[in-house]
Amino acid sequence: MASQPNTSSLPMTSSTQHERGQRASGRPSRVGTAADRVFLSLLRRYIQDAQVSLALGDLVYGPTSGEPVGTIQIRNRATLMRLLARPTLEFGEAYMKGDLEVAGDLVAALEALYRTTSDVARGWWHRLALWLDRSHSLNAARHNIHHHYDIGNDFYRLWLDEHLVYTCAYFAHDRASLEEAQRAKLEYVCRKLRLQPGERVVEAGCGWGALALHMAREHGVRVRAFNISHEQIAYAREQARAEGLADRVEFIEDDYRHITGRYDAFVSVGMLEHVGLECYDALGRVIDRVLDPNGRGFLHFIGRNRPAPLNAWIRKRIFPGGYPPTLPQVVGLILAPFDLSVVDIENLRLHYARTLHHWRSRFEAATDCVRTMFDEPFARAWLLYLAGSEAAFTTGTMQLFQVLFARGATNRVPISRKDLYVRPL
Amino acid sequence: MASQPNTSSLPMTSSTQHERGQRASGRPSRVGTAADRVFLSLLRRYIQDAQVSLALGDLVYGPTSGEPVGTIQIRNRATLMRLLARPTLEFGEAYMKGDLEVAGDLVAALEALYRTTSDVARGWWHRLALWLDRSHSLNAARHNIHHHYDIGNDFYRLWLDEHLVYTCAYFAHDRASLEEAQRAKLEYVCRKLRLQPGERVVEAGCGWGALALHMAREHGVRVRAFNISHEQIAYAREQARAEGLADRVEFIEDDYRHITGRYDAFVSVGMLEHVGLECYDALGRVIDRVLDPNGRGFLHFIGRNRPAPLNAWIRKRIFPGGYPPTLPQVVGLILAPFDLSVVDIENLRLHYARTLHHWRSRFEAATDCVRTMFDEPFARAWLLYLAGSEAAFTTGTMQLFQVLFARGATNRVPISRKDLYVRPL
Repeated sequence: MASQPNTSSLPMTSSTQHERGQRASGRPSRVGTAADRVFLSLLRRYIQDAQVSLALGDLVYGPTSGEPVGTIQIRNRATLMRLLARPTLEFGEAYMKGDLEVAGDLVAALEALYRTTSDVARGWWHRLALWLDRSHSLNAARHNIHHHYDIGNDFYRLWLDEHLVYTCAYFAHDRASLEEAQRAKLEYVCRKLRLQPGERVVEAGCGWGALALHMAREHGVRVRAFNISHEQIAYAREQARAEGLADRVEFIEDDYRHITGRYDAFVSVGMLEHVGLECYDALGRVIDRVLDPNGRGFLHFIGRNRPAPLNAWIRKRIFPGGYPPTLPQVVGLILAPFDLSVVDIENLRLHYARTLHHWRSRFEAATDCVRTMFDEPFARAWLLYLAGSEAAFTTGTMQLFQVLFARGATNRVPISRKDLYVRPL
Repeated sequence: MASQPNTSSLPMTSSTQHERGQRASGRPSRVGTAADRVFLSLLRRYIQDAQVSLALGDLVYGPTSGEPVGTIQIRNRATLMRLLARPTLEFGEAYMKGDLEVAGDLVAALEALYRTTSDVARGWWHRLALWLDRSHSLNAARHNIHHHYDIGNDFYRLWLDEHLVYTCAYFAHDRASLEEAQRAKLEYVCRKLRLQPGERVVEAGCGWGALALHMAREHGVRVRAFNISHEQIAYAREQARAEGLADRVEFIEDDYRHITGRYDAFVSVGMLEHVGLECYDALGRVIDRVLDPNGRGFLHFIGRNRPAPLNAWIRKRIFPGGYPPTLPQVVGLILAPFDLSVVDIENLRLHYARTLHHWRSRFEAATDCVRTMFDEPFARAWLLYLAGSEAAFTTGTMQLFQVLFARGATNRVPISRKDLYVRPL
């Protein structure tokens, strides 16, 4: 009997979750200390019936029923204690440092965890956390963006497509390569905006400039593209010169709040996640100020079905200041106050899962190089981020929304979406 | 000088609106009493620079600049006073009773009014009004629906299409007739839902049954369709029998809150406007209860960009209990709490304007018949409702949203929308 965990002594374990775990494959194969058993079973309880096993040394707690898709191997009790205290933060910290390993398919294991643990903001605590995360002043925003996007173009070249498009691709057919899918996405955005030659377009958060250049090259528009990442802007300007597009595409190293001029179209792909809820009104005012009476706009962003803060570890290590909004937040706070009208919304989350799959495959193939450029914890952190993001999109934990909008009073809006699909993307 | 309105004596007229009106075409051609002039100029002030003239007898106040598209002829001072007190309610009341006439294009004049006067809910008064309009108990809902939909199928036959589809049509091409456009809409809804033969569909608020019958006939699904309009259900059942579809389409005279069973798809076209905000949670619970884990749903409804109560007169005479919601209200109150995920949203407001144009043309051609069935005020009320609705959609005062959604965790969602457009609608 000494080899059986004493479930009755577990604090807070009144239900049968843990006991059911014991009856199924959850029986520990060997026993650690009594404390190890208690703490590991509490963690098991936290992840509910997730189809993964938890292991500390030889102590293994499997899922209630069915086969686990992987095993989370916790290296030591200190890590276990940290996981219990702040699971969403410490999982990433431990993985990054090698204090936690995932045996089996990493994405499948993370999917299993996402399916049973929810980030949804409940109660005043989460609302307070959201309110406190008001870190998007001009300086803070620059710091946030610098943290992620200025770590070296060479690094991103290892695993992004040739044009360094670092947002969800669009796989118009099953055999599309990442390169084809990114090009299709750029074209899809232009089609949704119904760009016409000679029009003026402003882009907020232009990354390495691929969309701005595509718009000018393929659709004959003039573009002013804003970004506060110094490395990205430098690269984008160089591309514009190399392509002979510098007279039609102006890359500006500045904050979206400083956009001036008047435009036929406003476009932002993958910036809104960095804006922060408390600045949505400011973004709405910018759009309202710069958009022509017959203008239209486009927002492409990672979102949620329900309000929730970004995963604490991702916020700490990957995207400081990041927040994926819900549609009501975007429509209610950015568009509605300025009578901007939703024309078309599409959810592309499965495209993002596929995009991330491509990125991770390339990243894994380049891991040695990443280790050399940075170090092992960095390589592990980014692998976890890419795998975790893929899992978040396949499980519906995250969404990818494309929102096309127009001035409320203009009738120059597309009457049909058929034109988007007449020619292959 | 006696023939000049004494603008300086106008209470509350501190700005130059009225004076500018005088300098332009707004000069009264002849003068009523001083009081008439005061009150008419106040009304002029209320509608701001709307491109219409206001007339009381020979007293005419034109727009600040430009030519008016029509003249609102107020028959007597009592009507003018009522208009000043409660403009949105009394405009309709006066028009209906013949105390107000619109010379010129009725839709153009209403568009002009919509462009300068806003229904947007501002401040606590409007929020209170919204809160007070909690009139959607099972009995109240039945009363509301009876008021509009049970006034006689013969009446609707006069001006709707042959299948009595009383919601926004889809004009797939410019030359589409109303009949073609309504058929295209039914098919478009089915395509968006990606209906497969043998699937189970529940419809909430099925009107005269056209969509339910189309789904069963053209897509081989089994349908249970709910409606609390007695006349509509009776008609729909008769149609099902006549078409030999009674074994696959069940029409049920009951409230959406009483839907039972499990379904692959939930669909509701044109019911949400009658549900009332305070019942959105109940609707969400119904959808959550009856939808399969891989199920998807569809909501088609008249909406707004910004929260606002329905026009007071429309609420009194046409749609008691009606409320056109915003997207944040629909997504935030119906979908999000149950982790239902937005897949696709489309705004079809210009299609509704065109639909209403068809309905009004047919209605006008049948006016004598309507007068015989009912009376002159009824005929005038419905003409105003149809013309006003057309104007609301052309000016962007109202929207028509189609929202496709799915369970948050299912990956059986369409990866592309191209399939909607491969075959002609």
